[in-house]
Amino acid sequence: MRVLLINPNTSRAMTAKIAVAAREAAGAGVEIAAVCPDPGHGPEAVESHVDEVAASAAIVDLIRRDLAAGGSDAYVIACFGDPGLDAARELVDVPVLGIAEAAMHVAAIAGRRFAIVTTLGRTLGRARDLVARYGMEHACSHYLAVEIPVLALEEADPETTAAIERACLGALDAPAGEAADVVVLGCAGMADLCTLLAGRVGAPVIDGVAAAVGLAAGMVRMGVRTGIRGEYAPPPTRKHGRNDTSVTSDGFPREAAQWQL
Amino acid sequence: MRVLLINPNTSRAMTAKIAVAAREAAGAGVEIAAVCPDPGHGPEAVESHVDEVAASAAIVDLIRRDLAAGGSDAYVIACFGDPGLDAARELVDVPVLGIAEAAMHVAAIAGRRFAIVTTLGRTLGRARDLVARYGMEHACSHYLAVEIPVLALEEADPETTAAIERACLGALDAPAGEAADVVVLGCAGMADLCTLLAGRVGAPVIDGVAAAVGLAAGMVRMGVRTGIRGEYAPPPTRKHGRNDTSVTSDGFPREAAQWQL
Amino acid sequence: MRVLLINPNTSRAMTAKIAVAAREAAGAGVEIAAVCPDPGHGPEAVESHVDEVAASAAIVDLIRRDLAAGGSDAYVIACFGDPGLDAARELVDVPVLGIAEAAMHVAAIAGRRFAIVTTLGRTLGRARDLVARYGMEHACSHYLAVEIPVLALEEADPETTAAIERACLGALDAPAGEAADVVVLGCAGMADLCTLLAGRVGAPVIDGVAAAVGLAAGMVRMGVRTGIRGEYAPPPTRKHGRNDTSVTSDGFPREAAQWQL
Amino acid sequence: MRVLLINPNTSRAMTAKIAVAAREAAGAGVEIAAVCPDPGHGPEAVESHVDEVAASAAIVDLIRRDLAAGGSDAYVIACFGDPGLDAARELVDVPVLGIAEAAMHVAAIAGRRFAIVTTLGRTLGRARDLVARYGMEHACSHYLAVEIPVLALEEADPETTAAIERACLGALDAPAGEAADVVVLGCAGMADLCTLLAGRVGAPVIDGVAAAVGLAAGMVRMGVRTGIRGEYAPPPTRKHGRNDTSVTSDGFPREAAQWQL
Amino acid sequence: MRVLLINPNTSRAMTAKIAVAAREAAGAGVEIAAVCPDPGHGPEAVESHVDEVAASAAIVDLIRRDLAAGGSDAYVIACFGDPGLDAARELVDVPVLGIAEAAMHVAAIAGRRFAIVTTLGRTLGRARDLVARYGMEHACSHYLAVEIPVLALEEADPETTAAIERACLGALDAPAGEAADVVVLGCAGMADLCTLLAGRVGAPVIDGVAAAVGLAAGMVRMGVRTGIRGEYAPPPTRKHGRNDTSVTSDGFPREAAQWQL
Amino acid sequence: MRVLLINPNTSRAMTAKIAVAAREAAGAGVEIAAVCPDPGHGPEAVESHVDEVAASAAIVDLIRRDLAAGGSDAYVIACFGDPGLDAARELVDVPVLGIAEAAMHVAAIAGRRFAIVTTLGRTLGRARDLVARYGMEHACSHYLAVEIPVLALEEADPETTAAIERACLGALDAPAGEAADVVVLGCAGMADLCTLLAGRVGAPVIDGVAAAVGLAAGMVRMGVRTGIRGEYAPPPTRKHGRNDTSVTSDGFPREAAQWQL
Repeated sequence: MRVLLINPNTSRAMTAKIAVAAREAAGAGVEIAAVCPDPGHGPEAVESHVDEVAASAAIVDLIRRDLAAGGSDAYVIACFGDPGLDAARELVDVPVLGIAEAAMHVAAIAGRRFAIVTTLGRTLGRARDLVARYGMEHACSHYLAVEIPVLALEEADPETTAAIERACLGALDAPAGEAADVVVLGCAGMADLCTLLAGRVGAPVIDGVAAAVGLAAGMVRMGVRTGIRGEYAPPPTRKHGRNDTSVTSDGFPREAAQWQL
Repeated sequence: MRVLLINPNTSRAMTAKIAVAAREAAGAGVEIAAVCPDPGHGPEAVESHVDEVAASAAIVDLIRRDLAAGGSDAYVIACFGDPGLDAARELVDVPVLGIAEAAMHVAAIAGRRFAIVTTLGRTLGRARDLVARYGMEHACSHYLAVEIPVLALEEADPETTAAIERACLGALDAPAGEAADVVVLGCAGMADLCTLLAGRVGAPVIDGVAAAVGLAAGMVRMGVRTGIRGEYAPPPTRKHGRNDTSVTSDGFPREAAQWQL
Repeated sequence: MRVLLINPNTSRAMTAKIAVAAREAAGAGVEIAAVCPDPGHGPEAVESHVDEVAASAAIVDLIRRDLAAGGSDAYVIACFGDPGLDAARELVDVPVLGIAEAAMHVAAIAGRRFAIVTTLGRTLGRARDLVARYGMEHACSHYLAVEIPVLALEEADPETTAAIERACLGALDAPAGEAADVVVLGCAGMADLCTLLAGRVGAPVIDGVAAAVGLAAGMVRMGVRTGIRGEYAPPPTRKHGRNDTSVTSDGFPREAAQWQL
Repeated sequence: MRVLLINPNTSRAMTAKIAVAAREAAGAGVEIAAVCPDPGHGPEAVESHVDEVAASAAIVDLIRRDLAAGGSDAYVIACFGDPGLDAARELVDVPVLGIAEAAMHVAAIAGRRFAIVTTLGRTLGRARDLVARYGMEHACSHYLAVEIPVLALEEADPETTAAIERACLGALDAPAGEAADVVVLGCAGMADLCTLLAGRVGAPVIDGVAAAVGLAAGMVRMGVRTGIRGEYAPPPTRKHGRNDTSVTSDGFPREAAQWQL
Repeated sequence: MRVLLINPNTSRAMTAKIAVAAREAAGAGVEIAAVCPDPGHGPEAVESHVDEVAASAAIVDLIRRDLAAGGSDAYVIACFGDPGLDAARELVDVPVLGIAEAAMHVAAIAGRRFAIVTTLGRTLGRARDLVARYGMEHACSHYLAVEIPVLALEEADPETTAAIERACLGALDAPAGEAADVVVLGCAGMADLCTLLAGRVGAPVIDGVAAAVGLAAGMVRMGVRTGIRGEYAPPPTRKHGRNDTSVTSDGFPREAAQWQL
Repeated sequence: MRVLLINPNTSRAMTAKIAVAAREAAGAGVEIAAVCPDPGHGPEAVESHVDEVAASAAIVDLIRRDLAAGGSDAYVIACFGDPGLDAARELVDVPVLGIAEAAMHVAAIAGRRFAIVTTLGRTLGRARDLVARYGMEHACSHYLAVEIPVLALEEADPETTAAIERACLGALDAPAGEAADVVVLGCAGMADLCTLLAGRVGAPVIDGVAAAVGLAAGMVRMGVRTGIRGEYAPPPTRKHGRNDTSVTSDGFPREAAQWQL
C-alpha cells in the first residue's frame, strides 16, 4: 500500500519532517511517499487565502503527476487548511484526506471537546470554516493562535513549544462547562511536537498528519474508496481548438515541478 | 495490539460473523478478541431503546471483566446504536469506538452525503440522534429501513440482500441535489454484505465494524488515547456500608457472564 | 390521577425530599408515588455515564414492576441526566417526563436564556447533550458547576446554598448580551432550594421535579399520551428457547427490588 | 388561580369555543377568563402578517386593560402565530404562553417528531419562524395546510374535519425515516377537533389552547414567574409634553374595547 | 426612483437625521422621502417589545397611506428591530428592507465576523432573534450595548461617541479566534456616527440606513421585486357587516397621522 | 466608480454577455470593466472543483494585474461557485463580491425561500457549501439542475430556457409548506435569461451578476470597504533567495494573461 503525502508548500525541510511523522503512524506494509512543489510552483508557506489558492493548484498538479506515474492507494494533503481537497477527490477514486479533517474526526473520538492551536491568528477563519464543513461545531471549543509564522516551526525552539503548551493549557484548564479535553495541532509543521505536548499537558494532542495517514491506511484496508457517482465524479473533459499543448483544458500546466522524498 | 470487539447482544452467530469482518479490516499485528454477553445477561437483539439500555449495561459488564483480565488496547462497540459509548470511555483510557460513529466518520470522508440503510424503521430515531451527536446532519441525506429484524440477518437470504440493495439505490439514484454518494449500513449484522453491495451499487458501502477496527488500530498506532481530564475521567468511587459484595457501588454485578470468540 | 416519580439512585433520603417537592407542585387530585431501587439494584448517585447506564436499567426495572402492579397515569424520571427516557416511553403509552427536559421547557417559557447550575462539572457534557436534544441551544447561555457531589446535597448546608447562589448570580449578572434571566437547577437533589434561591437572586429558578410533575399532570388532564406509531411503539418481543425464566428476552431481571414512599 | 385567555381576533364565536377547550384542560381551582377585542379593535381573523400586527396591538391593549382591572395569574395568547408574546411578557411578571409555543413543547414530549397541520398555507412561514425560535427544528417534520380559512372553522363541517384528518395521516403514514408520530393543530379554531382527530388517527393530537392552559396552571402552581432581569423588564417610561391623554407614550390607546366571556 | 424611509418612532429630529444619511448613500436619481408617525400614533422610541408592536402598527399605517398617495419604488424600515417587516412585504410588491437586515447582509460581505453595538442591552434579545432569522449566527461575534437611551442620541455628545467607540474596540481587539473585523451600529439614531467611527477604529462600521437604501436602490435597478406567490401575497380581504368605516377589516384605522420630510 | 467584473473562465462570449447584464444593473456613474483569462490561463468553464481551483488562481492573477494598473473601486467574481473570494479580499481593501453570495443575499430579501437552479448537478455540492457559508440554510429550499453544460448557455436555445423554466416552476408550485417564492439562477451564463424567466414564472428571478454589481456599487457609495484587521489583512510577504523573478513568493506568475472588454 502506497500513500502519497503532499505538502503543498515548497519547504523541503517541512516535507521531510512530516514524512517522519507519517511513517511512524503508518502500520506495517504502508509505504509513504512525500512530495512538495518546487520553489516557484507553490507557496513558501500557507498562511493566507492567497497561499491556499496557490497550494490548491500545486496539489492538483502533483496529483496529476502522481497519476501519470501510476498513482497511489491513498492521498494525504498535509496542510491544515485542507486546500484542494474536493478537487483531489475528483481526480482519483481512492481515499483522499486532509489533515484538518482527519485530526478533527480523531479528536471527536478521543474526547468531547477539542481546542485548535495554530500558528497565525489570521488562519483561524479558515479553521472555523473547516470545523463547520466537517460538522464539528459542537466539538470544537477553542480557536487559539500562538502568532508564530509557519516556517519558524522548522527549527525546534523551546520557546515555541512553550507557547504552544500554554495555549493548550488555557483550553484544557478552563472551567468545566467550557474546557477542552483534547487538543488539535493546527499546522503540519507541528507534527513532531505531538508526543512531547501530550505528555506535558496530560491530554490527547492530535497531529493531523498521523491521523490522516492512519485513517487513509484503514480505509484502504477496508476497501473504501471515494464515491464517484456524484460530486466527485471525474471532471468533465472538453474539446477545444487551442494549439497550446502545454496546458490542459482547465488551464493547468501539463507537468508539475516537484521534489520527492 | 489487541482490540476487544463487543457485541452487546447474545447472538453468538452474529458475534462470529462480526469477528470475521473485523479481522479482515484489521492490519497485520492487530489481534481481535470478540465477546458477547451470555443469554440472559444481555438483549437477544438491539431493536428498541429498552434493548439499548440492556446492551449498555452488558457493555459496562464486559469491559470491567476485560479490565480485570488485563485490558485491551482499544474497544469497539459492535452495535449501530453505539450503546454505552460514553460509559465505556469513562472505564478505560484507551480508544473506544462505536460502529455508528466510525461508519459516519469514514463515510464523511468517502463522499459528500451518505444514506443510512438499516433493519427496522423504529431504530431510525436513534440513528438521527447519533447523526446529530457526531455532527453529521449536513452529511446524512437519507434514513432508510428495510423492515427486516436484526436476527433475520443471521441467515444469508438473497431477498434480504436485494431489499437492502434497493434501499441503497433509492438514495444513490435520487436527483442530483438530493442524492447520496455513499451508503452506511446501519447494523453490525450486515457486515458481511458490505463488499457485495458496494460492487452492485457502484458506490462506497461502509460497514461500521471494519471502520471502527480500522480507526481504533490507527489511533493506537499514533498513540492517541481517550482524554481523561473532563467528562471521561474515571467515575467517582463511593464508600458505603452495604454487605452485598456481589455488586459494585453503582449497582452493577461484580462479574459478567460472557461468551468469547 | 397517579404520577410515579422514579428516583433512579438508591438514596431513600433524596427520594423522600424529591417527593415533597413533587407533592407541592402537583395540583389537587394528583397522587404522587415515589420509588427508588434497592441498594445494589441501582447507583448510589448519578455522577457519571456509568451511573447513567445503571440508572437507566433501574428505571426499566421499576417501570415494569409498576406496570405489573397496575401502572400509573404518568411517569417522571427524577434525575437531571434524564436516563432511560426513551426506553420508558416504549414501555408505556402515557406521558413520561425527564426532569431536565421539563425544566428546560419551562425555563424557555419563563425567560429568554437560562443557566444550568449543577453539582459536578463532569456531568455538564451530558447536560449539553440534552440541551441539544431538546432544541435548547439558543436558550441555554451558561453551563456551571459548583463541584459538590450529589449526595452532599442531602444535608442542608448553608455553604452549599451560597455556592449555588454565587453560580446563579454569575450568569444573571453577566453583561446584557450574554446574561441569563432564568436559572435551571441541574440536580434533583436541589429541589428543596428552589424557592429560597429564586428569592435571593431575583429571577425564576426552575426545579425539574416540580416542572415535570406540573407538565405530566397537565398532559394527563388534556388527554395527551405518548405516541406509539413510531419509535415509541412497544419493544418487539422475541421467542427463545432459554429455560431461565428469571430474566426477560432483553436480559432484564423479571422483578426489580425497590423501596417505595 | 385566574388565567386570562386572549383571542386576538374579533370572533366571539371562536372565543367561546376556545374557552370551552381551555376550561376542560384546566384542573380544579383554575378560573378561565376569555376576552377578544371588539370589532374594529382587532383583526377578524389572523391569516397574514398584517393581521399579526393588528393582533399584537390588540393583545397589548387587552393585557393593559386586564392589569388595570387587577391582573391575572397567567396569560394565554390564543392564536397560533403567538402574536405579541414578547411584548406581553414585558407587561406582566407572571407566566405568558403562546399556544404555538405550548403545543410544540408538549408535542416534543409526547413523541419524537410532530407535524403542524394548519388552515392557510400562507401562514406556514410564520410557523417555521416559531419552530426555529422555540428550538423545534429537529422535532417538526411536516408543515401542512388544508387551505381552509380560519373563520370557516367556526362551523363544524365534516369535510373540514376529513381534510384535516387526511393531512394528519399523510404525515403519520410517511416512511419510517420521515414520519411524524404526533400532530400539532395549527389554529386555535381547531381546539374542538382535538379528541376526535386523536381517536381517528391513532396518535396524539395537540391543541395549543389546552397545552398552554395546562402549562400556565402548572407554572403558577410551582411558583415560576416571568424573568424580569433582562429583556422582559418592564418597558421604559418616558416623559413627554403632549397633551393627548388618550394615548400612552408608546402610542397605544389608553383603553381597549373588548368583549369578555 | 422614490424610496420611502419610514422611521416608526415619533421623533422628527431623528427622522431628519436619518434622511440625511439616506440621501448621502443613495446614488443619483434616487429620491428619498422620510416619514414618521405623528405623536400619539407611534412610540416615542423603540426600546422594548411593546414599542415594537406600536412601531409595527405605525408602519402598516404609513405604508397604506403611501399606497393611497401613489406608492413608492421601495420601502426602508428605519428601526434596528425591523418591526413590521413581514407585514410591509405583504402590503407592497416592491422591495422592503429593514435596516438590521440590510446592515447584516452588508457586514457579512465586508468581513468575516461583525459586532452589533447598540443602545440598550434589553434590545439585544431582539438583535439575536434577527441574527438567527437572517442566518447570521456564524457571522455575528458580539452583542454589545452602551446603555444609552435611543433619544439621547439626538444630541451629538462626545461621551456617547466615545462609549460606542470603546464598545467597537472591545470587539475588534479581542484575541484572533474571537475578534470581530466589522461593526454594525444597532440603532438608526447612530447613522451620523458611522464615518467618524470607521475612521477611529480602523474597520468598516455599517449603518443600516445607508445599507438599506443602497440595497433597495440596487434591487429597483435590477428589477427585483418582492415575491408574491407565497407568504407575501396580499393579505386576504374579508366581508363583514360592520358599519364602522373608520377602520379596515383587520382593525387598523383607515388613515394614519404622519409627519413627512 | 469603476467595478471590475472578473469572469474566471476563458469564454470571451460569456464575458461579453455578463458585461451587458452588469451594465444594465449598474446605476449612472458606474463604469464596468470586464476581464477573463486568456485561453490556457484559466478553465474553459467552471464545472468541477478542479475547475474552481484553476478559476481561483486566475482570479488572483487578474486582480494583481488590475492592481498593478491602478486598481478598481470594487470587484465582482462572476462565477456561481464564488472561487477565490477570500483570497481576493486579502488582495484589496475595497468591496469584493461573489455572484452566488450576492444573489443569495438579494434573494433572502425578495422573499422567504429561494430555489437554486443551475446547470450541472455535480456543482450543487458547491452550492450547498456556499449556502451554509452565507447562512442561507433556512432560506434555500431547493437545489435543482437542468444538466446542461455551462458553455451550452452561450447560444440562446429555447429548449434550454424551457428546461430552466420547468425547474423554476417545480420549486415555486410545490405545496405551501415546501415551496420557494424566489429563484436564484446558479450560473453567470444565465444572466440574460433573468427578466424573461421572471415574467414567465411570476416570481423574482435573481441573477447574481446584477445583484453583485448593485451591491458593490451601493457599498462603494456608502463608503464600506473590506475589513483588514483580521483574516482579510494583506497576505504576509516573505524573503527568499530564489532567482526566479517570474513568480511571486506564493508561486503565482508575476503577470497574468487576460482579455479585457
